[in-house]
Amino acid sequence: MWPRNELLRRLGIDHPIIQAPMAGGPSTPALVAAVSEAGALGSFAGGYLPPEAIRSAIQEIRRLTGRPFGVNLFVPEPARRSPSDDEVARAQEALRPFRDELGIPVPPRIPPPPAFEAQLGVVLEERVPVFSFTFGALLDADVKRLHDRGVLVMGTATTPKEAAALELAGVDAVVAQGSEAGGHRGTFAGPPDEGLIGTMALVPQVVDRVGVPVVAAGGVMDGRGIVAALALGASAVQMGTAFLASAESGAHPRHKEAVLTRSDEDRTALTRAFTGRLARGFRNRFMVEMEQRGAILPYPHQGLLTQDIRQASARAGRDDFLSLWAGQAAPLATAKGAREIVDDLVAQARVALKRLR
Amino acid sequence: MWPRNELLRRLGIDHPIIQAPMAGGPSTPALVAAVSEAGALGSFAGGYLPPEAIRSAIQEIRRLTGRPFGVNLFVPEPARRSPSDDEVARAQEALRPFRDELGIPVPPRIPPPPAFEAQLGVVLEERVPVFSFTFGALLDADVKRLHDRGVLVMGTATTPKEAAALELAGVDAVVAQGSEAGGHRGTFAGPPDEGLIGTMALVPQVVDRVGVPVVAAGGVMDGRGIVAALALGASAVQMGTAFLASAESGAHPRHKEAVLTRSDEDRTALTRAFTGRLARGFRNRFMVEMEQRGAILPYPHQGLLTQDIRQASARAGRDDFLSLWAGQAAPLATAKGAREIVDDLVAQARVALKRLR
Repeated sequence: MWPRNELLRRLGIDHPIIQAPMAGGPSTPALVAAVSEAGALGSFAGGYLPPEAIRSAIQEIRRLTGRPFGVNLFVPEPARRSPSDDEVARAQEALRPFRDELGIPVPPRIPPPPAFEAQLGVVLEERVPVFSFTFGALLDADVKRLHDRGVLVMGTATTPKEAAALELAGVDAVVAQGSEAGGHRGTFAGPPDEGLIGTMALVPQVVDRVGVPVVAAGGVMDGRGIVAALALGASAVQMGTAFLASAESGAHPRHKEAVLTRSDEDRTALTRAFTGRLARGFRNRFMVEMEQRGAILPYPHQGLLTQDIRQASARAGRDDFLSLWAGQAAPLATAKGAREIVDDLVAQARVALKRLR
Repeated sequence: MWPRNELLRRLGIDHPIIQAPMAGGPSTPALVAAVSEAGALGSFAGGYLPPEAIRSAIQEIRRLTGRPFGVNLFVPEPARRSPSDDEVARAQEALRPFRDELGIPVPPRIPPPPAFEAQLGVVLEERVPVFSFTFGALLDADVKRLHDRGVLVMGTATTPKEAAALELAGVDAVVAQGSEAGGHRGTFAGPPDEGLIGTMALVPQVVDRVGVPVVAAGGVMDGRGIVAALALGASAVQMGTAFLASAESGAHPRHKEAVLTRSDEDRTALTRAFTGRLARGFRNRFMVEMEQRGAILPYPHQGLLTQDIRQASARAGRDDFLSLWAGQAAPLATAKGAREIVDDLVAQARVALKRLR
C-alpha cells in the first residue's frame, strides 16, 4: 500500500513508521521488539544508560526479534564549562523544597554524565542495524566507523540548517523534529527557541535542503499524520507519544495516565526545568514551580541533579515531580499493545490514502 | 483531481485553497479577485478599516470578478478595562526612541479602535459570499444574521476547545490555525501561548472534535502542504505567506523583500510589540528592542499607539519598524502573480497526490 521508498528498503521494514526512542524508561526492549515484529522500526533509547545496560538491552531485543531495530544516543554538546560550586548550590537550593516534600536527602555527589564514547562503543561492537542520535552532529569519523560495521545512521534536526550539517557529516537519513514533538528538542545549532518550527513547515524545507531521506517527527499520532508526512516528502515518520502509553511501554504508570487522561485543554508546555535542555511535556508542579524559581543548570547538569527527585517521585507514585514528556497530539494516544497500535496506524493510513484517491 | 468535498461545493470554488486575509495592506482587491479568478477563494481583510473602506473594497472586488470571495473581520475581545493614562504614558515612553529616530511627533490623540458593528453591517448589506472572523467567537445572533443573507461563515480556532465553541456559535467551517502561521494568533480562549499547537497536531484533533468542515492554516506553502492538510482530514487550506510577496499583494516592498530574501536561518518569532496581540513575523529592530523595553499595552491599544510609527517606517522605506508578518515556511514563498501561484499549487498538489498513489 505504501509508495515505493528507498529508506524502507534500506531499513528493511514494511511500514514507514519508526517508534521514537524515549529515554528514561518508555522504550523497553519489549516495546522495541514488538514494534519491529509488527513491521515498523522499534528504537531503544540508550542516552541515559551505562554502556553495559545498553548492551544487555540490545541482546534482549535480539532474543525477542530477528527484525531490524534502532538504538539512539545523545551526542554530547561541545565542551562548555561546568557550573561553578556556587551555581550548583543555587540550583540545589531551588530543588530543596521538592526533596523536603519527598523526604529524601541531597545526594552526597552528583552522578557523572554518561560516557558517550563507551556507549557508542557498544553500538559499534553489537553492530546494531540502525543508529540514531540527537542533540548534536556526529563526527564524520564516527559516522564512518558505524558505516564500516554496516550500521545505518540517522541524525535529528530541528531546522533546515541543522539538517544540512547532518548530511555533511554523512548520515543516511535525517529526522526532522517539528515543534509539536514530545520530550527533548534536538536543537543543536542556534538558540533552542529558533528550533521550534512546526512539522508542516519544517519537513518540506528539510526535504528541499538535503539529498538524503527525511523522517518526519512531531505531532504525528495516527494514520492521517503518516500520510500527511509522506505528502510533505518524508520517507517515514517517527512517533513517540503514540507508543508512550502502550502495553509494552516502560513509562511510569502516572506518566501513562497523564497521556491517556489529560484533555486537550490541559496542554503540554516547553521547559528546561528537568534536564536543562528544552523539552515538551505536561505541566506539573515541578515544571511550574521551577519556572518560577529559576536557577536551572545547563544540560546535562540539571538532569543529573534532578535524577534522585524524579526517581523518588516515581517510587512514591506521584506525578508531581516526574517529567511527563508528551507531544502536542497526546489526546490521540491509546493504551493498546504495540502490535495493535502499528496495525491500527496502517489501517488508518490506508483509509487516509483512499480518501485522497 | 481533488477528493469530493462538501466545503468546496458550498464555497463554489474549484481548488481547496483559501488565500488568507492579511490585514494592513497585503490582501488588496486585486489579489483577492486574482485568487478567486484562478479557482481558489480570495479573502479581503477588513479588520483595520473603516466601514466605508470595506464597502469600496468589496465593490472593487466585484468589479474585478464574478466569483466567490471572502471578507474577514476581527471580533472585538470581551470588554476589558482600557489602559490607564499612566500605562499609556509608559507605553508611549517606550516608543519615543523610534519616533525620535523617524522624526515624527507623538500624535495628539490615539485613533479609536475600528467599530466592529458598523464593519459587520457592511458585510451584511453587501451580502458577501463568505465571511470569516478571527480573535473571538461571533455571537449566535450575528451568525444567524449572516446566514439569513446567504453568507457562509468561517471562524478561526487555535485549539480543539475553541473549534468546539465556534461550532456551537453556528459557523459553517472552522479554520484551524497552527503555530506555524504568520501574523496574528487567533487564540481567544485561554492564554495565547496555549494556542501554539503545530498544524500537524492541531488539525486531526479539531477534525475529531467538530462536525463542520475544517480548513488547515499554518505552514502550508505549496502543493505538498495542501495534500498533507487534506490527509489530516481538512477540507481546504488557508495560505497567507504564499501570497504575501505576490505581484498583486499590497504588502510594503520591504516586507515582500523580507519574505523573499530572509533565509531559513533568519527565522520568524512571536511578538506582542506591534499590536498587543501575539503575532508571528521576522525579527527586526522594533520587535527586538520593544521586547527588551516591555511596556506593551494590550490589544487593540498597542496597535493604535504604534500605527503612526509603522506608517512612518513604511513612508521612509525602512523595515526597522514595520510588522514583517510571515509564517514559518516563508522561505518557500515566490513573487509570482496570484494566478500563477494558484496554478503552481494545483500542479504541485497533483504531483504530491501522484507520489502517494
